[in-house]
This record gives sequence, C-alpha cells and structure tokens, in this order.
Amino acid sequence: MPRYKLTIEYDGAPFSGWQIQADQKTVQGVLIEAFAAFCGETVPLQGAGRTDAGVHARGQVAHVDLAREWDPDTVRDALNAHLRPQPIAILAAEKTAADFNARTSAVKRHYLYRIVNRRADLTLDAGHAWRIPRPLDAVAMHAAAQTLVGRHDFTTFRSTECQAKSPVKTLDRLDVVRGGDEVTVSASARSFLHNQVRSMVGSLVMVGEGRWTADDLARALEARDRTACGQVAPPDGLYLMRVDY
Amino acid sequence: MPRYKLTIEYDGAPFSGWQIQADQKTVQGVLIEAFAAFCGETVPLQGAGRTDAGVHARGQVAHVDLAREWDPDTVRDALNAHLRPQPIAILAAEKTAADFNARTSAVKRHYLYRIVNRRADLTLDAGHAWRIPRPLDAVAMHAAAQTLVGRHDFTTFRSTECQAKSPVKTLDRLDVVRGGDEVTVSASARSFLHNQVRSMVGSLVMVGEGRWTADDLARALEARDRTACGQVAPPDGLYLMRVDY
Repeated sequence: MPRYKLTIEYDGAPFSGWQIQADQKTVQGVLIEAFAAFCGETVPLQGAGRTDAGVHARGQVAHVDLAREWDPDTVRDALNAHLRPQPIAILAAEKTAADFNARTSAVKRHYLYRIVNRRADLTLDAGHAWRIPRPLDAVAMHAAAQTLVGRHDFTTFRSTECQAKSPVKTLDRLDVVRGGDEVTVSASARSFLHNQVRSMVGSLVMVGEGRWTADDLARALEARDRTACGQVAPPDGLYLMRVDY
Repeated sequence: MPRYKLTIEYDGAPFSGWQIQADQKTVQGVLIEAFAAFCGETVPLQGAGRTDAGVHARGQVAHVDLAREWDPDTVRDALNAHLRPQPIAILAAEKTAADFNARTSAVKRHYLYRIVNRRADLTLDAGHAWRIPRPLDAVAMHAAAQTLVGRHDFTTFRSTECQAKSPVKTLDRLDVVRGGDEVTVSASARSFLHNQVRSMVGSLVMVGEGRWTADDLARALEARDRTACGQVAPPDGLYLMRVDY
C-alpha cells in the first residue's frame, strides 16, 4: 500500500486535541472521516505529536496508507475539500517510503508559544496567544530558560497523566525573545513529555513577572516533583510548528 | 476640556466599518457607547482613518474630549472593561494638546495587507488574510508597485463612493515582500482615497499571477478610470498599522 506523508495546519480551539476519542471532535477523528469521504477507506492515521485540546499546529505531520496510488496533490486538494468547514488544512501531501513513520521517524519537534504582554484584552489574537498583563522581563526569562536546556528528568514539567515510560528528555533549545509587546518561547527537542512546553512556559512567566528567580526555576527542575511546577500555560498560545525527519 | 489620544486595535470582521451609522454595529459607535458607560458623556470621537467594513486595525488613533481630568491609564482600563466582549481594545490612552486632531494632524498612515499564497484554505488566519491559490511572483509585484509610488491621480484606484475632493495623492511607499507562503504589501502615505489600498493590492495580484504586466498596471494608473482597476482585494487582509503625527 502506498504511504503518504501529510503536513497539517489547524486551529486547535474547536477540538478536544489531536487524538481520536469517542463522542469528541478531534483533529485525528475529523481527518479519518475526511479520508473515508474521499476514498471510502478507514485509514489508521498516525501523527507526529498528540497536541492537547486547544493547541494549534502550523506543521503537524501524519502518515497514512491508502489502498491505491493517488497523485499527492489530488490527495491534498480532495482532503481539503472534505475538511471544510473545519479549521484543518492539508498544506502538503507527499508520497513517502513504506518505513516512514510520522511519530517514530521524527528526529526533532519544534514548538512555539506566543505571549502578548499588555494590559488590553486580545482582539485579533484572541484564542491564539496568552495575554499577560504584568510586564515580563524576557531577558531574565531567556537566561533562566537555559537551566532547562540539556538532558534532565522533567518530572516537574510533566502532566500527571503523561504516559511516557521515562521522564528523562533532552531539550535542545528554549529561547525567549521579545518583539514589541509579543514574547515568544521557542522549544525544540526530539520529543516532549505531556504538557511539558506549557509547564515550562508557565514557570518561565513566573520568572518574567519577578515572582521567581532563575534559581527558583532550577530548584523546581531539581525537585522532580509535579507540585513544584509554577503554573501551566493555557493551550491558546501553543503551536506545533515543524517536525524534522 | 482635557483631550485624550487613544491607540486602538480591532478585529474588523463583526463591524460595518469604523464610522458610526444608525442601526449598524461600527467601531466608532461601540467606542462612543463605551465612553457613555464609563463617564456618562456622549463624546464626539474622531478617528485617523475611516476603515471599511471588515478591515482591521493594529494602531488606529482617535481623539476625544472629556468633561473632567482622568488618569490616562484609568481611561484605557475602564474603556477596555466596557468594550468587552467586543474585539476592540484600547492599547494606550494619553493626555494630548487641545489642538491635536487624530485626523487632520496625521502626517503619515501605514497600512499592511496580508496575502497567504497557497492552495489550502486558511485555518488560523481565516478572516485575517486573503488566500490566493495561484503562485504569486512577489518580485514582479514589488517592481510593478514602484510605478504607483509618488504623486499621481489615483482615480483608477478609488471607490466611486469616495468623497475626497481631489483624486491626487502622494504614495510614499508600496513594498511587496514574500516570507514563506505569506506575501505582504506595505503602503504608506499622508492619506489614502477610499478603497485605495485594496484597489492597488487587487491590481498587484493580477501582476503577481502573470495576468498583468507592469506596463498594464502603469496604463491602468494613467487611464484615471475606475473601470481600469484590476479587482478590489477583500477587507480581510487589510490592517491600519500605525499613524504618525
């Protein structure tokens, strides 16, 4: 069976996350329905990252096997037609090798977290960023973030519902940059624990607001204790940007 | 009476434009209602640009006279509270000179037009950009755009409903830049005619798609004839970004 690699964008707001669930609208579920409408097959669609409810994607990747050979652009355009009016779009469809696996072949995942740091409510960015009214020191946040880069036990920054076997992960990049009133956090790693980016961002905001020092963040990491996490950032600001293979 | 300068952001989608109209929801109308709720006064609120229905703003400017002196941050925060849940936000309120006029004191207005150039429907950017499926040559668009820069009779690029006395305007900047699948057009001038930016963008897209040459664009300008305009871009992609004084 020919295998296809899909690059997918979505607005996470109306979905109960990526993963298919009975009686819930999920991105994976809607995609599987669109494939059924397109070619009559119920396909086992595998994604690179199981984004949570409300989390967005600019470059989620999935693979799927189809019974017959299709022109990849036909797959893209037909899927997009069947996905309307859901806010999910297939940006690209490519024929790929039979041993390509969107989840296990991934060598790096890139997430972006958008914070808008201002008093006024969001208008154009409502649902697409986290508004923090108190002034954030993005330089202090970036400096503190470097404590988390590298190979660590991330139990503090992991949901209690996380199903990963080990809490030890290698974080390759955690950069905090300010541009005007927008503060973005870029996180890259081979893989992340459940809620890890939102937990790290929530704690970094504590640093940015001056409620935590960089040492407090380091101690939270060392505690290896979920209750030491500062706070968990809301899903609105989180985007799965790209997956490298 | 103390005068205040307001910097305003809004999502234009739910509004019949900036200017107050009977029986229509407009940005100016909602702001005047919020002032009435805040201080009991019906204020004559004057804006820098009368954005059309559906057009957004990141930095609209208005001035308003209030009966008594208020701390500017109180004006900002109270207005924002009264504006909820409308997607209008006061980014800043400042005390200003009695002779400051948001419309007539403006020396330059800056607009941005966002195009997303791809086959797939918009998800996160729905309502906030114009999707063009055919590949656009942004370099050709930028080169052609330079024909429009300078002092010209812009009758071709002006709505038939435009009320300006003269169709002659000086366009200071019209830059077209591609970043990934996003093509942005930046336009700056002391003032614009009604529908001018959307009319110029619509015609530039004809150039980008290869349906018009740069010479066709130059001839359209020289025609000084509204029917020579290629097409008018939809309001979704247009943002009033900043006003200089």
